Amino acid sequence: MSLKDLTAKNIFLHKPYIPGKQPSNFEQTIKLNTNENPYPPSPRISKSILKQIDALARYPNSSADSLRLTIAKLHNVDVGQVIVGNGSDDILNLCVRCFSDYSKSIGMFDPSYSLYEVLGSMQGVEVKKFAFSDPKFEIEPEIISQSGTNLFFLTSPHAPSGRIYNNSIFSSALHQYSGILVIDEAYADFAPFNALSMLNESKRVIITRTLSKSYSLAGLRVGYALASSGIISILNKVREVYNVDRLAQHIAEIALNDREYFEKTKSNILSVRENTHQIFTKWNWKTYESGANFLFTQPIDSRGLFGEEIALNLFNFLSANNVLIRYFPSNPLTSSFLRISIGKQEEMDMLLNLISKWKTTDQQM
Amino acid sequence: MSLKDLTAKNIFLHKPYIPGKQPSNFEQTIKLNTNENPYPPSPRISKSILKQIDALARYPNSSADSLRLTIAKLHNVDVGQVIVGNGSDDILNLCVRCFSDYSKSIGMFDPSYSLYEVLGSMQGVEVKKFAFSDPKFEIEPEIISQSGTNLFFLTSPHAPSGRIYNNSIFSSALHQYSGILVIDEAYADFAPFNALSMLNESKRVIITRTLSKSYSLAGLRVGYALASSGIISILNKVREVYNVDRLAQHIAEIALNDREYFEKTKSNILSVRENTHQIFTKWNWKTYESGANFLFTQPIDSRGLFGEEIALNLFNFLSANNVLIRYFPSNPLTSSFLRISIGKQEEMDMLLNLISKWKTTDQQM
Repeated sequence: MSLKDLTAKNIFLHKPYIPGKQPSNFEQTIKLNTNENPYPPSPRISKSILKQIDALARYPNSSADSLRLTIAKLHNVDVGQVIVGNGSDDILNLCVRCFSDYSKSIGMFDPSYSLYEVLGSMQGVEVKKFAFSDPKFEIEPEIISQSGTNLFFLTSPHAPSGRIYNNSIFSSALHQYSGILVIDEAYADFAPFNALSMLNESKRVIITRTLSKSYSLAGLRVGYALASSGIISILNKVREVYNVDRLAQHIAEIALNDREYFEKTKSNILSVRENTHQIFTKWNWKTYESGANFLFTQPIDSRGLFGEEIALNLFNFLSANNVLIRYFPSNPLTSSFLRISIGKQEEMDMLLNLISKWKTTDQQM
Repeated sequence: MSLKDLTAKNIFLHKPYIPGKQPSNFEQTIKLNTNENPYPPSPRISKSILKQIDALARYPNSSADSLRLTIAKLHNVDVGQVIVGNGSDDILNLCVRCFSDYSKSIGMFDPSYSLYEVLGSMQGVEVKKFAFSDPKFEIEPEIISQSGTNLFFLTSPHAPSGRIYNNSIFSSALHQYSGILVIDEAYADFAPFNALSMLNESKRVIITRTLSKSYSLAGLRVGYALASSGIISILNKVREVYNVDRLAQHIAEIALNDREYFEKTKSNILSVRENTHQIFTKWNWKTYESGANFLFTQPIDSRGLFGEEIALNLFNFLSANNVLIRYFPSNPLTSSFLRISIGKQEEMDMLLNLISKWKTTDQQM
């Protein structure tokens, strides 16, 4: 039998998720493409990590009890409403495995986080993608409620635009929809408000969070979900029993408890985001109001033109100058825009200098 | 709709894996129940870990390139023949997701590692369990080749007996079987030989390894598989792109490269295993020749009796004295035995003293 015949049919046809580019040499690159945090994580980590090394010989706490308690206190929910994952991607995967099958389809808006579709494909289930009908990326609750799906993924703040949504939209969606609604709040710490109050409105809502962005821990792989205890019990059935390692549990807890450091780095990022947004606005570049640690902006070239070719041109120009940002060519709502993670002010200054150079020369055509 | 109606049918019926007991207080417990390594991991780790903390703000290398290169060199295989997982449990899960579906069933011997069945249940596929026909836990290659399965899991050295298998058995199985054979070598570093040469015999064999046992890194969650590059490519389609975090990649590489420390702790464990085995033999306790870091032994009480009740009695007695070992009651081939992880000599001495006390009193009935 060929390897093709030996492979599960949906996996043979499956196209994996493609992550953002990771450079081999960080020193020479300004990395603004995967919405990481430009600051190091809490300095408290180094002080206590060495004591944890010898304990690595022992399996981790399989239910991450201490970390879950910290998360529960932070959000004022019961510890039974918390599950921790090897990154929030792990949690999203658990949602798909638990709440979709041959007769239970998945819904998502397009564009949003492309991993939802990848996870559905791995599960071999139907994924219904609903194109946003306007460039504001408005969510119409009726689309969710009439989707005929069992599980629906929303990204809030939206990616890649960064726009925020009022809770009344989720409230209305939950009221009309009979399935399970996942609100992926990967970027919510950078937004003026969040959807946590939805947990009181429905036992069918799952809110996912990550420590990869606001806590400077993309390299550690820790995410979590908040939901009703009934939902969490089901997700736990599929969770790998030791999915989060000892160091990750320990470091995540320290980072979550260091509120002062969290607020300081967050406020730096918000202020750099505001400065950068103002400059784009001064240039007349259409830029979405962002509740995330990135900006989605439509570049205008020296001739005053914008569009797919212009965006791609600036993307390539920056890439050639070791500045990594993200470009999403496949969708008309995104193909004339670029997504730029918020780095440190000095990184953004270098970026803006490069763009100024690009803006005022005719090199692009 | 009820949560039951919203849950995928196979998940609603699914029974999760139950991990070995993890005590909350290590100081008061002698922990010999989950085959961890009693020694701390390589001392080189502490020296270099602090430099890694700040880099945690960045996503890990998504294909663990440097770690995979280290593994490839260690086993003298091509780097394209290596995949790294969040523990070898992650790899076993990838095998199930890639090579089983509604028409492709899974095979395994009973007893062996119970997770295989759990993963099959999560996938919603048929798992065929073949009971060992004799107490020697012999593998008959015909059972594999005539199983009608697409994917077969073998544990070598066997768990929970610890017995080793000659490669001629695997060779013969691979020759007759048309499916994919996984040889789970979690404990192979403690055995006199291993099955790596099978990689040259077949493109349908997958050998899984873990750093949880021989490298003292159960708390870190790093495992890997070696197979043909065709198999590895398919497994990679389903692997979460950032499944192994930065610290785990870094620490695993250090541990794999510190051969001197590895050999030293391994030889300590082999020598303590031998000492303990000799004592059990002196007591006339039937004990399997072990190629792993545990012993599987049949306790005899003060009246000279053995059996299910006797084994359970000693298990409970040790547990009451804060010594954790493992008991497998459900199978007649295991229910009169106990599985004891090899700890440090002083831990084994305390264990043996406690057993001597139990052996010479009538408290057990």
